[in-house]
Amino acid sequence: MSGRSELGRKPDRSVVDTAERDAVLDEALIVHVGLIAGAGGEGDGAHPVVIPMLCARLGDRLLLHGSPASRLLRTAKAGVEVCVTVTLLDGLVLARSAFHHSMNYRSVVVFGTATEVTDHDEKVAALNRLTDHIVPGRMEAIRPHTDTEVRGTTVLSLPLDEWSMKVRSGPPIDDDEDMDAPAWAGVLPLGVAVAEPLPDPLMPERQVPPHVADWSRGRWG
Amino acid sequence: MSGRSELGRKPDRSVVDTAERDAVLDEALIVHVGLIAGAGGEGDGAHPVVIPMLCARLGDRLLLHGSPASRLLRTAKAGVEVCVTVTLLDGLVLARSAFHHSMNYRSVVVFGTATEVTDHDEKVAALNRLTDHIVPGRMEAIRPHTDTEVRGTTVLSLPLDEWSMKVRSGPPIDDDEDMDAPAWAGVLPLGVAVAEPLPDPLMPERQVPPHVADWSRGRWG
Repeated sequence: MSGRSELGRKPDRSVVDTAERDAVLDEALIVHVGLIAGAGGEGDGAHPVVIPMLCARLGDRLLLHGSPASRLLRTAKAGVEVCVTVTLLDGLVLARSAFHHSMNYRSVVVFGTATEVTDHDEKVAALNRLTDHIVPGRMEAIRPHTDTEVRGTTVLSLPLDEWSMKVRSGPPIDDDEDMDAPAWAGVLPLGVAVAEPLPDPLMPERQVPPHVADWSRGRWG
Repeated sequence: MSGRSELGRKPDRSVVDTAERDAVLDEALIVHVGLIAGAGGEGDGAHPVVIPMLCARLGDRLLLHGSPASRLLRTAKAGVEVCVTVTLLDGLVLARSAFHHSMNYRSVVVFGTATEVTDHDEKVAALNRLTDHIVPGRMEAIRPHTDTEVRGTTVLSLPLDEWSMKVRSGPPIDDDEDMDAPAWAGVLPLGVAVAEPLPDPLMPERQVPPHVADWSRGRWG
């Protein structure tokens, strides 16, 4: 990790273990991808753009995908630097003072330059991974990608070379002089809630398969 | 809205109603703030950085806050442009082909230049709003901010002048030739789950007050 991925604030919250990092990347359903747009002088001038995307880890790389018409993917595949940030919100931390309110979270920030995946078999493997990352077992339940679909999708790969991770967990940390305050203090644990699956109205009545019925994400699954 | 906040892809998913925008901003617990770091030649060169932050809307402005030592806040208050992106994930869309899998979401992207809030009373109002945005009713339950705390916090304000919003909702949209596929198709609705409040172990036994016990966020609250 180089300078910009070193943590400036609260270095005690820093995590450098790749297994912990991968657990966060593998739990996330969306990431936020930032890049500098307009640097080529296309009108607005250089400005930051942050877009939510699906993302999946495959080994030591992150995979992004989308339509070849996506402005963000077209910019990213031209070799500009991106910043991919993953945030899992684990809880609200209610302290005795507003000042010490906080959040429990795990976040990973990855810097780098993405490259396009062009090899057909690698692209299929990436698309399978992206689908199964969100709904494990899904690719077994549906037909394979057609060649037209593979050609009609842009896949980018970003190496997990330069990254940082921060974690906050546990109860609030209050100032000594506030410890006798009458306020309730503690943590409201948060996670991903899933409701009953909603069948497509155009589908004949059909039992909900286990990969859908049992879907869950995160530590409460 | 100017050029860069016009939607390039899927303009049918665009929303221009400010009430819908505000509902998204008011539901979000975190946002992702992007900016161009290193442009001043501090070593790494210009590169995008995306950081998760707490954010709250006050009228037609977004409020951000943090430590005066925060690199991101120091960069942002120097007048560089930021992009604040809010994403609420409403569901996973399971189609009959991987290609048509999608997500139901509401997202808002705000572009602009933040200014620092320096007036003491405005700063107090902003800090109250940030706290009550996350846990409504919280400021009534805790002591007011001290002057030291107010001075020790940087508050930035970003006008909601230039923004775009995208929404996807509803069932999957499959190709005609896939409609007889045997796969289950539909939506897995997602939301924010909250578990039992965890009291601070350092607090004497105390009843959980309504603003904590009844906390919920989103459409299932």
